[in-house]
Amino acid sequence: MIVNQRIYFDHAATTPMSPLALAEMHKVGSELFANPSSIHMDGSKVKSYIEESRKIISRNFGVSASQLFFTSGGTEAINTVIRSLVMDQKIQNIFLSPIDHPAVINSVVYYAQYFKIAHSFLKTNHFGKILEEDLIHQLQNAKGQSLVCIIHTNNETGAIHDIESLCKVSKEYNAWVLADTVQSVGTMQLDFLKMGVDFACASAHKFNGPKAVGFLYASDPNLLKAFFMGGGQERNLRASTENIMGIAGMKIAMEEAMTQLEERKIKVLELHQLMRSELLKLDGNIQFNTPTENFHPKILSVHFDFGPHSEFLLMNLDIAGISASGGAACSSGSEKASHVLAHLRPGQTGKTIRFSLSHLNTKEEVQVLIDLLRKL
Amino acid sequence: MIVNQRIYFDHAATTPMSPLALAEMHKVGSELFANPSSIHMDGSKVKSYIEESRKIISRNFGVSASQLFFTSGGTEAINTVIRSLVMDQKIQNIFLSPIDHPAVINSVVYYAQYFKIAHSFLKTNHFGKILEEDLIHQLQNAKGQSLVCIIHTNNETGAIHDIESLCKVSKEYNAWVLADTVQSVGTMQLDFLKMGVDFACASAHKFNGPKAVGFLYASDPNLLKAFFMGGGQERNLRASTENIMGIAGMKIAMEEAMTQLEERKIKVLELHQLMRSELLKLDGNIQFNTPTENFHPKILSVHFDFGPHSEFLLMNLDIAGISASGGAACSSGSEKASHVLAHLRPGQTGKTIRFSLSHLNTKEEVQVLIDLLRKL
Repeated sequence: MIVNQRIYFDHAATTPMSPLALAEMHKVGSELFANPSSIHMDGSKVKSYIEESRKIISRNFGVSASQLFFTSGGTEAINTVIRSLVMDQKIQNIFLSPIDHPAVINSVVYYAQYFKIAHSFLKTNHFGKILEEDLIHQLQNAKGQSLVCIIHTNNETGAIHDIESLCKVSKEYNAWVLADTVQSVGTMQLDFLKMGVDFACASAHKFNGPKAVGFLYASDPNLLKAFFMGGGQERNLRASTENIMGIAGMKIAMEEAMTQLEERKIKVLELHQLMRSELLKLDGNIQFNTPTENFHPKILSVHFDFGPHSEFLLMNLDIAGISASGGAACSSGSEKASHVLAHLRPGQTGKTIRFSLSHLNTKEEVQVLIDLLRKL
Repeated sequence: MIVNQRIYFDHAATTPMSPLALAEMHKVGSELFANPSSIHMDGSKVKSYIEESRKIISRNFGVSASQLFFTSGGTEAINTVIRSLVMDQKIQNIFLSPIDHPAVINSVVYYAQYFKIAHSFLKTNHFGKILEEDLIHQLQNAKGQSLVCIIHTNNETGAIHDIESLCKVSKEYNAWVLADTVQSVGTMQLDFLKMGVDFACASAHKFNGPKAVGFLYASDPNLLKAFFMGGGQERNLRASTENIMGIAGMKIAMEEAMTQLEERKIKVLELHQLMRSELLKLDGNIQFNTPTENFHPKILSVHFDFGPHSEFLLMNLDIAGISASGGAACSSGSEKASHVLAHLRPGQTGKTIRFSLSHLNTKEEVQVLIDLLRKL
């Protein structure tokens, strides 16, 4: 999508709002203002809208509306699970991986250190995928209740975990699984039941919905206590007046995304393949951090080693009007080395750029990028 | 404000969106979609918008932009402070009052019980105001660092605490003060420095802004650790992609509210006085939970004791097209007894209704209410 003539290849960081979702937000913002906890008719109307949205959204994941809780996004959902399982369920071990999102890593490390419980990082392959044999090995040696954290689609490499298999293994040791599905929801078909995850999450702004709204799925909500304590909203799991406009926008963006899922997927895959092959034509030795099997086509992470020019590549692309990302946006703000890439390419020279695509991109945009890289 | 011909007297629960704020949200939602943590130009533009909004908002409270953090609302802000002070600052005592908002009571009780630290409820007068001598007495007997929680404008009675004086007392004992300013921000002039509070908070939807956005003020942000752990947003105090549309709406609603503060205040006070005097004309023995001194005119809490009719009063008003509230909306959803009213009127018969007003109400609406009550 060209925004002010710019080319936007950073859809894993965030996506432009769907005009339909934006229109629904505006409508809901004008018409449904009452507090859904108010018992008068104005409040009831809003309450109905929220519960109807919950049903519509949950249907896409093969789960019941009673298992879905609205949050301010993926970070809150992840923090909700980790805090409560550590403090209320008193789990004894947490397994995560070095390529997890900071929302997982930072909260696991904080709560595990605070309560002196075991946490260990699972071994991964070159693309950042957890090695199943290492998970088995670690679970065999764990004492007490464990939580396994798995990033479904890695936000930096695009690698997709075989989550069904990892969940099966985890279940054999009675471990709970928290799946970070933020990069997957809205761009691929997910069935939380079939996957076998205990917890999953979403951020609407990853699929053309508004920022600051998302959801937490819990197969058994009774395992959790509220992260936000206060009023009895979201069946006591999340106090705070509901984000009606945000929920409205997420609902519409989700409906659009699911209706157009196949055509969007095909388009993004074409763009991904085109970019990959054109980059290889440019330099046959170019390396990719995105695997060629079990990957999400929206992400193409490229390792450039063009000598001294590599360092300034991202900046020069930006100046030329192309928005891409060095690592994930979520923890940067400065161009510091990504913890995922540092793990995957320890001590390596060169520069990684993550191009992340959506159905809004075009082949012409990919060509503009390739032409520009040739010049640079 | 008449919404679908209905009369809305529940502005303490939430307020209708300002059309200007809604328009700004729509504009920002269309134009500024990038992730403010992305280092490219699309991201920087969004980052600038957020920082500019932070400056504009903080100016209204006489504080620096670096002391203001955007949250999903008051509940999150309150939870942030209580969790972190208990877990990270390891405070030893928390003083609160039975008329605090559930966001304060429920999180204080949870964390205090969990970490076995002292928490005690301060004595209040008939209108739910903390007795200063009790605070002094309790602080004198406290060992170690204390936190005092004070609701500035009580959401059920409208009583306003003399927070400057309570802060002064608290400071003499080196206690920190968390002021729940949710019902005050946007409807009265507040200077956090002058008040002497260590922490304060706001929810935009209480002053015609969007739901699910607000802020936390911290006089010394270093006292706190993040509640949302993950990315480095909000200078590491609040991970999660920023709520750009929400911040935009809050900024505009705040600017409108502060510009029109005096005229709105005068109008709301007139409506409050009219409603009070008309109710007294209706029944000279009617009782009010809202004091006549140091009160917020937006709230008029009335105790009806019309015999058996009282019980159904709220429902009958609703059927006749008037939205008001039994207690606070935040914890209800069902018409259960409010913890505040239970504290103020233990065991009393009759029914309390909270009418909460705004500049959008009219004298005619008050008259419709009075005429209706006369019939009922």
